[in-house]
Amino acid sequence: MISSREQVTQMIVSAKVSKGLKWASIAEAIGQSKEWTTAACLGQMTLTKSQAEKAGELFDLSEEAIAWLQIVPYKGSLPTAVPTDPLIYRWYEIVSVYGTTIKELIHEEFGDGIMSAIDFSMDIEREADPKGDRVKVVLSGKFLPYKSY
Amino acid sequence: MISSREQVTQMIVSAKVSKGLKWASIAEAIGQSKEWTTAACLGQMTLTKSQAEKAGELFDLSEEAIAWLQIVPYKGSLPTAVPTDPLIYRWYEIVSVYGTTIKELIHEEFGDGIMSAIDFSMDIEREADPKGDRVKVVLSGKFLPYKSY
Amino acid sequence: MISSREQVTQMIVSAKVSKGLKWASIAEAIGQSKEWTTAACLGQMTLTKSQAEKAGELFDLSEEAIAWLQIVPYKGSLPTAVPTDPLIYRWYEIVSVYGTTIKELIHEEFGDGIMSAIDFSMDIEREADPKGDRVKVVLSGKFLPYKSY
Amino acid sequence: MISSREQVTQMIVSAKVSKGLKWASIAEAIGQSKEWTTAACLGQMTLTKSQAEKAGELFDLSEEAIAWLQIVPYKGSLPTAVPTDPLIYRWYEIVSVYGTTIKELIHEEFGDGIMSAIDFSMDIEREADPKGDRVKVVLSGKFLPYKSY
Amino acid sequence: MISSREQVTQMIVSAKVSKGLKWASIAEAIGQSKEWTTAACLGQMTLTKSQAEKAGELFDLSEEAIAWLQIVPYKGSLPTAVPTDPLIYRWYEIVSVYGTTIKELIHEEFGDGIMSAIDFSMDIEREADPKGDRVKVVLSGKFLPYKSY
Amino acid sequence: MISSREQVTQMIVSAKVSKGLKWASIAEAIGQSKEWTTAACLGQMTLTKSQAEKAGELFDLSEEAIAWLQIVPYKGSLPTAVPTDPLIYRWYEIVSVYGTTIKELIHEEFGDGIMSAIDFSMDIEREADPKGDRVKVVLSGKFLPYKSY
Amino acid sequence: MISSREQVTQMIVSAKVSKGLKWASIAEAIGQSKEWTTAACLGQMTLTKSQAEKAGELFDLSEEAIAWLQIVPYKGSLPTAVPTDPLIYRWYEIVSVYGTTIKELIHEEFGDGIMSAIDFSMDIEREADPKGDRVKVVLSGKFLPYKSY
Amino acid sequence: MISSREQVTQMIVSAKVSKGLKWASIAEAIGQSKEWTTAACLGQMTLTKSQAEKAGELFDLSEEAIAWLQIVPYKGSLPTAVPTDPLIYRWYEIVSVYGTTIKELIHEEFGDGIMSAIDFSMDIEREADPKGDRVKVVLSGKFLPYKSY
Amino acid sequence: MISSREQVTQMIVSAKVSKGLKWASIAEAIGQSKEWTTAACLGQMTLTKSQAEKAGELFDLSEEAIAWLQIVPYKGSLPTAVPTDPLIYRWYEIVSVYGTTIKELIHEEFGDGIMSAIDFSMDIEREADPKGDRVKVVLSGKFLPYKSY
Amino acid sequence: MISSREQVTQMIVSAKVSKGLKWASIAEAIGQSKEWTTAACLGQMTLTKSQAEKAGELFDLSEEAIAWLQIVPYKGSLPTAVPTDPLIYRWYEIVSVYGTTIKELIHEEFGDGIMSAIDFSMDIEREADPKGDRVKVVLSGKFLPYKSY
Repeated sequence: MISSREQVTQMIVSAKVSKGLKWASIAEAIGQSKEWTTAACLGQMTLTKSQAEKAGELFDLSEEAIAWLQIVPYKGSLPTAVPTDPLIYRWYEIVSVYGTTIKELIHEEFGDGIMSAIDFSMDIEREADPKGDRVKVVLSGKFLPYKSY
Repeated sequence: MISSREQVTQMIVSAKVSKGLKWASIAEAIGQSKEWTTAACLGQMTLTKSQAEKAGELFDLSEEAIAWLQIVPYKGSLPTAVPTDPLIYRWYEIVSVYGTTIKELIHEEFGDGIMSAIDFSMDIEREADPKGDRVKVVLSGKFLPYKSY
Repeated sequence: MISSREQVTQMIVSAKVSKGLKWASIAEAIGQSKEWTTAACLGQMTLTKSQAEKAGELFDLSEEAIAWLQIVPYKGSLPTAVPTDPLIYRWYEIVSVYGTTIKELIHEEFGDGIMSAIDFSMDIEREADPKGDRVKVVLSGKFLPYKSY
Repeated sequence: MISSREQVTQMIVSAKVSKGLKWASIAEAIGQSKEWTTAACLGQMTLTKSQAEKAGELFDLSEEAIAWLQIVPYKGSLPTAVPTDPLIYRWYEIVSVYGTTIKELIHEEFGDGIMSAIDFSMDIEREADPKGDRVKVVLSGKFLPYKSY
Repeated sequence: MISSREQVTQMIVSAKVSKGLKWASIAEAIGQSKEWTTAACLGQMTLTKSQAEKAGELFDLSEEAIAWLQIVPYKGSLPTAVPTDPLIYRWYEIVSVYGTTIKELIHEEFGDGIMSAIDFSMDIEREADPKGDRVKVVLSGKFLPYKSY
Repeated sequence: MISSREQVTQMIVSAKVSKGLKWASIAEAIGQSKEWTTAACLGQMTLTKSQAEKAGELFDLSEEAIAWLQIVPYKGSLPTAVPTDPLIYRWYEIVSVYGTTIKELIHEEFGDGIMSAIDFSMDIEREADPKGDRVKVVLSGKFLPYKSY
Repeated sequence: MISSREQVTQMIVSAKVSKGLKWASIAEAIGQSKEWTTAACLGQMTLTKSQAEKAGELFDLSEEAIAWLQIVPYKGSLPTAVPTDPLIYRWYEIVSVYGTTIKELIHEEFGDGIMSAIDFSMDIEREADPKGDRVKVVLSGKFLPYKSY
Repeated sequence: MISSREQVTQMIVSAKVSKGLKWASIAEAIGQSKEWTTAACLGQMTLTKSQAEKAGELFDLSEEAIAWLQIVPYKGSLPTAVPTDPLIYRWYEIVSVYGTTIKELIHEEFGDGIMSAIDFSMDIEREADPKGDRVKVVLSGKFLPYKSY
Repeated sequence: MISSREQVTQMIVSAKVSKGLKWASIAEAIGQSKEWTTAACLGQMTLTKSQAEKAGELFDLSEEAIAWLQIVPYKGSLPTAVPTDPLIYRWYEIVSVYGTTIKELIHEEFGDGIMSAIDFSMDIEREADPKGDRVKVVLSGKFLPYKSY
Repeated sequence: MISSREQVTQMIVSAKVSKGLKWASIAEAIGQSKEWTTAACLGQMTLTKSQAEKAGELFDLSEEAIAWLQIVPYKGSLPTAVPTDPLIYRWYEIVSVYGTTIKELIHEEFGDGIMSAIDFSMDIEREADPKGDRVKVVLSGKFLPYKSY
C-alpha cells in the first residue's frame, strides 16, 4: 500500500542508484528538460500518464506507483526550514544576503508584484572559466503585478 | 554615536526615499553593477574608501557613517528565518521546491562540492514576453569541489 | 527621519484612532475598495501618488511619510508565525484544518498549480442570518498552472 | 491494530489513488458537499455511522477503520507550522498579508468577536474569466461576539 | 502619539502600581467582574465609552489613551509561545498534560465541536481548605458543534 | 517488547474504539473520576496494581502492558508546543489571552506563588442553557506560596 | 514612568556596578540568604515593604521603583529558551543529560509527583578540593505527590 | 542489527519493567552510585567492559548490545528543547528563574568561569520533614576558570 | 531497498561496533586521513569507487550500499539545530562566544570574505600537557574574498 | 545609566570605527593575544582592573563603562541560534557536517569526555599558499574526562 508520493520518490532514488542512471538521460527518455524531470522524479511535479509510464519503465515501478506520479504532490523537498546541506544552504544564503536587493531591483523595474515561482523555469549549466569553471543558473519567472481593486 | 551598520542602512534608505533616487543611478555614481551596489547600500557589502565617499555625497552621510561603510558588515538582510514578504518568499520557495533538484544536477555535472555564494555575481533584467514580461535572473558562482585529504 | 514603512503605519493607526475615522470612509476618499485600502493603510500595499496625497490629508502626514506610501513595502502584517489574536488565529486554523482539502479540490478542478495571492481580491461582508449574522468572505484568485519545460 | 485516525486517512488516500476516484463523486455517494467530504476523508471531520459505512464501501475499509471514522479526530492537516506546499502557502500568505486587514474590517462591521471556524462552511468553485479562469472561494462563518461579564 | 494598545496597557499598569489600586476595586468602579476587567485593563478586551472614561479617571489617562481603550485590541498577553512565568506555565502544563483528556470528555458528552473561548466566562476564587487553601477556577464556555454541509 | 508507555496508550486507544467503550464506564470500572481515569488511560497518570489489572481486563492487555501502567510515565500529551486541534487550541488561547489576568488575580488574592497542577483536580460537565448548552469546567489546585529563605 | 519590573532590575544592576556592591553584603542588609536576595534583586521574587525600602536605600531607588519591588513579577530570567551563556548552559545541560535520571530516581523513592520549585531553597558554596575547588549546590524542594480523584 | 545506543536503552528500559528491577539494586550490582548507574542505563554514560557485562546479565542483553554500552553515546535524554514532563520541567524552571542568580553568585565567589557538568557528581536523597518530606539534591562540579592568553 | 545514505551510515556504524574497528585503522585501509575518512563513513563525504569497495570489505556491505557510498550525500550530521551532546555543544559554544571575534580577526587580516568550509581540512591530535593533556585541532580553509562586480 | 555589558560593547565598537583602530594594536596595548582581546572587547570576557583602564583610555570610556568591563558578562555573541553571517555560518556548518566526526575521533583518542571551551585558546593566522592564502586556526582545549562515581 502506497500512501504518499514520498514513498514513490524513495523507490525512484533507490532504483536510480542501483541502475546507475543519470538525470540527463532520464530527462531525455521522459522528453522534458533535465531540471523539470529531476524535480518531478524527486516528488515536486506532476507527471502526465505517458511520462509516468515512461518513468515506470526506467525505474521498474508498480502500477500503483505509476498512478501516484500522476497525482499532484505535497511539495517541499527539504527536511528543515533552514537547510543543513552546504550546497543547498548556499542558495538559502543568497536569499538571506541578497533578498532585499532582489526585492528592490525587481520593484524598481516592474513596480509592486512578484516573480512567479509557478510560471517559472530554470536552466543549470557549466560555464568554462580559466580561473575555475562556474555554475551558471538562469531563472525565468513571469512578473505578476499586485492588483488594486 | 553609530554602533552598527544597520543604523547606516536606515540613513541610506531614508535618504533614498526623501531624495527620490533610483538604484540604477546610484550604481552608476558608485561605479559598480546595480546588483552589487544595492546589496552594499542595504548593508551586505563592504565599500572602498572612494565608493563610501561617493555614497556619503549621494545620501548626505556623516564622516562616521562613511567610516562604517568601509567596515565589513554582519550580513543577513531578512528579519525572519522564513521570509514573510511575498517576493522574497518566492525565492525561498524555489529553494524549498527545487533545492534537491539543484543539488542533484550540480553534483551530476561537477561532482561533490558547492556553487560559491562568495565568488558570485547576479544579474537581474526584464525579459520582454508577449504573454507578460518576465524577470530573468542569471546567477553565476564558481564551483568549489570538496577536497579529500 | 523615517526609515521604514512600519513607522508610517503607526502614524496612520494613531491618527485614525485620534480622529475617529472609519475604514469604509477612508476607502471612499481614496477611491478603492475597503479591503485594499485597509491593507494599504496597514502597510501591505503600494499607493499611487494621488492616493498617497489623499491619505496624507486624511491622516495629517508629512511629505516624507507620503513619499514612503509610494514605496513598495516589506509585506507581512503579523508579529508571530502562528498568530495569537483569536480572530486572525481562526484563519490560520482554517488553513491548518482545511489546507489539504483546499489543495485537493483546486487540483481536482484545475490540475497542478496555485490560486494566486497576487492577482487576488477579497470581499468581506455581513450576511444576515436569523440564527446569528455571519461573516461572508469571498476570495478570488487567478489560477496559475505549473508549467513544464 | 489501528491506533490513530491518521492510519485510516492513509488507507483512504491510498485507495483513492488506486481506484482513480474523484472527490466530487465520493461526496455525492456520501451525501455531503465536496468540501466537507474531502475534509472528512482527510481526517478532519467526524462521520456518522451511515457516512462511515458508505466510505467503507468506497475505499474497502475494515470494520475497525469504519469505527475510527466515527471518532472525533485530532485535527490539523499540515506537517509544519508554516506550510511548504506552494498552494497551501498562498493561503498562509493571505493570512500573513491580509490578517490585520480582515481583523479591522470584521471589527468595524461587527465589533469585538471572531468569525467562527466551527459554525463555518466553504465553497470552492471555478470562475470563468477571459484573462484566465479564477478560483473563487466563499467562506461563511457565524460572527461570535466577545461577551463581557 | 500612541500607536498601539500595548502602550496604554503600560500606562495602566504603571498607574496601578503608583496608586496602589486593587483589581477588585477597579472592577467595581467599571461595573464588570474582576476577571473581565483585569483582562480588559491588560489589553485583551474592548471597553465601551463609559467604561473607558471610568478607566481614564482611575488611571489618569489622556483622551487619546481613552480612545484606544475602545478599539478592539490585537490579543495575546504573553511574550513567548511557551510561558516562562511559573504561575502561567502551570496552566500551559494543564493544557499539555490534560489536553487530550479534555478533548475526549467533551466529545464524549457533546460530540464533535469545541468549547468556546469567546462566549466564555471565568471565575477565580479562594476555596478554604484545612490542608491549605485552594484556587478554584470555574470556566464556562458555550459548546459549539462542528456543522456538516 | 514494549519500551515506552506510549505503546500501551496506543493499545488502549485502539481497544477502546474496537470495543466501543465509553470513558465514563471505564472510569466506573476503575473506580476513579472520569477525568483522572481518562488522563491515566491516555498515558499521563500512574495506576495502582489493581487499577492496572482492571484496565488490563477492559482493554485485553498483556502482562507486560499492565506492568507499564504502574510505571510513572513521561508526561505531555500533545504533539506540538502550540496545539493544532481546535478544541485543545481554545484552551491554549485561554492561557494566551487570560494568562496575565489569571496571574494578577491569584496574586491579588494569595500573594506570590502558584496554583498547583499536581495537587489538582478537574471536573468537566454539561451546563444546560436555553441559548445553547455550555461546557463547565471546574479546576481546583492548592495554592503554593513562594518561600523566602 | 515605570511599566515593568525589568526596568527596576536594570536600575539595580546599574547601581550595583557603579557602587561596587557585593550580593553577600546586599543579602545581609536585606536579611535573607544571598540566593534568595540575588534572585529578588534580579526580578524573580517579591519583596516585603521593609525589604524593598532597604533595597531602595542600597540602590538609590525612587518611590515608584520601591513600589514595583513589592509587586509579584513576571518570572523567567533568561533571554532565550536554550541559554547561550556557558555557565547557565551547563545547568541546562545537566537537565538535558540527567533529566530522565532525576525523574527515575525521584519516582523510585517517592512515587509519582514532582520536586517543588516553589517550596524550594538553594544553597551555593565553595567546596575546597586539592584537585581544584568545587562548586557545591544544594537544592531542596518539597515532594508533591500527584493526587488521584 | 543495532545502529544506535538508543535501541539498547529501549531494551534496558523494557527489561527493567518486565523484571521489576529497581535502580538502587541495579547500581549495587554494577558497583557505582545509583545516580551514575541510572544515567548510564538511560544511554548517557559509557560503561567499562565489566560494567557492561554485568548490565548484560541483569537485562539479558545480546553481545552486540553489550558492545554498544562500551561506546561513548550521543548524549541528551529529552525529546524537546523545553521539557514537557512536569518533574523535569521544574528543573528547567529552576534554570529559567534562578539561572542569572546562580551565575552571579558563582562569579562573585570564584570569578569568571563555569561549574563543570563533566567533572560533576549528583546525589539525590529523601529529606524527612514534618511538613512533608523533601527531595534534597546535592550537585558538585569542579570550578573551571576562563583562562586569558 | 536502500533509499538514503543514512541507512548505509547505520550499517557502517553497526558493523564498526560489532567488529570493534578503530577509525584510525579504517582510515589507513582507505588511504585517507582519519578526519576525512570518519566524516565519509558517517555519511558526509563522497567516496571513490575504490574507496567504497575498500569500505565494503571492511564493513561487509552489499553492492547496493557500496553504490550509495559513491553518491554525493545530503550533508548535516546532527539531529537538532543546537546540538545536545556535550562534546559537540562545546564547539557550538565556541561559535556562539567567539563567532564575532573570528569574524573580526579574519576580516582585519584578509578583508571581506570567508574561510572556506569546502576547500578545508582538519587535523585533530593529542597535545601532551603536564596540567592535563589537551585536544589540539588545526583547521585550515582557503580564504575566499567577496567579489564586487 | 549603563545596565548591560552590551551597551559598553556598542561604545567600544563605535569608538573603534571612529578612531580607525586595529584589533592587533588594541591587543598589544592591553597586553594579551589578539584573539582574547577581541573577544573581551566584544563583550565575551572579563577584564582585570588594569586591562579595563587601558581599554578605557583607548576607547574614551566613562568610569561606569570601565567598571562594567570588570564584571563577568552574559556571554553569547550572535543574534540568532543559526548564524546568518556567511563567515560565521561556515563555522556553524563545520560543526554541523563534522560534529559527529570530531566526537568520534576525540573519544577514540581520549575516551568519554569533552574538549574544554573554557580552558581553551585559539590562534588565527594567515597561511601563505600559492593556490590562494589560507586561514589557519589552531584551537587548543584541555581534555576533561567524564567521571563515574
